[in-house]
Amino acid sequence: MIMKSSNVVWHQSTVTRQNRQEQNGHLSAILWFTGLSGAGKSTLAHAVEDALCKMNCRTFVIDGDNIRHGLCADLGFSSEDRVENIRRIGEVAKLFTEAGIIVLSAFISPFRADRDRVRELVPEGDFIEIYCQASLEVCEGRDVKGLYKKARSGEIPNFTGISSPYESPEEPEIIVKTGEDSLEACAQQVIEFLQVRGIVQPTSA
Amino acid sequence: MIMKSSNVVWHQSTVTRQNRQEQNGHLSAILWFTGLSGAGKSTLAHAVEDALCKMNCRTFVIDGDNIRHGLCADLGFSSEDRVENIRRIGEVAKLFTEAGIIVLSAFISPFRADRDRVRELVPEGDFIEIYCQASLEVCEGRDVKGLYKKARSGEIPNFTGISSPYESPEEPEIIVKTGEDSLEACAQQVIEFLQVRGIVQPTSA
Repeated sequence: MIMKSSNVVWHQSTVTRQNRQEQNGHLSAILWFTGLSGAGKSTLAHAVEDALCKMNCRTFVIDGDNIRHGLCADLGFSSEDRVENIRRIGEVAKLFTEAGIIVLSAFISPFRADRDRVRELVPEGDFIEIYCQASLEVCEGRDVKGLYKKARSGEIPNFTGISSPYESPEEPEIIVKTGEDSLEACAQQVIEFLQVRGIVQPTSA
Repeated sequence: MIMKSSNVVWHQSTVTRQNRQEQNGHLSAILWFTGLSGAGKSTLAHAVEDALCKMNCRTFVIDGDNIRHGLCADLGFSSEDRVENIRRIGEVAKLFTEAGIIVLSAFISPFRADRDRVRELVPEGDFIEIYCQASLEVCEGRDVKGLYKKARSGEIPNFTGISSPYESPEEPEIIVKTGEDSLEACAQQVIEFLQVRGIVQPTSA
């Protein structure tokens, strides 16, 4: 765009995603962690981020902690609001990829259609769906936040896995067995995928 | 947080804003460009980003181009929607500062209360208000997108400066005379402010 003032011409410059990726030494992508409450999505996302940070990558985790009281503070848990919640998270994740960052999103995101909508929002290959597979028994057994207990007693309605369905991914890029494997092993599995895909550089062993 | 699975303990690790800032070699902040349509907010934001990028800083511009059709695609131009628009932009900008990035936002953001709400959202010093000062005559004379013509004919209602007020900042951190000065001079003024504030390192002259 050229903008003509009285006597000066203003040119619009652009720093591209490509520029940023070169600056960072890695590609950007969305790592979309999905699974039941208590499956370990957020903990795994932070562990992967920690490993990537040690490899000098630029990363950011979006999860309930920084989204629910901020960007999506106006949304409740109705079906409509849950769709809008995931839509906004997808749009924010997209902005982060444009900024050259590996963004890790950790939300139950129980519905296939919502996740697929985010996948379609970005260029092919940018959306990496990571299914955090843990049985309801394991998740409910952990019940870190006491939510399952409240869901069973009816105090929390529409709780995924109890009173609302979880639609597991049909063709996720990665399945991590967060109900069985160690955090370290799960994180390593994600890092290796990113290396094979060429998103980050292989680590010198 | 410690999460106990059957036989493994999962610890939550955290990469902090402090870590990211050290990794990047500069602090993060919100550069909030405000002013009339045609004042050059977006062009200046991109010019500042370009200069910062050459100084190897991590930056990102949010403006109408990447917000209006994405995160805020569901919003119109009613008073209520305009408030929500700025609220979401503020929340996204906050996330970027937490990610260690200098985020440059370029929106008319005509109302003081909306801008002040963003200022209060983040720690003191993070919000840098940059008033792009250009007279209505200059902006309307440029009319790059033909919007003023449409506003004058009534085709666009509630147009800032014509049929809706613009509340200029009372104590902005920076005033740039975008109606008079060159793009280069305005960009340089912003960069120097960031250096004096210690957000970015002084350049070796």
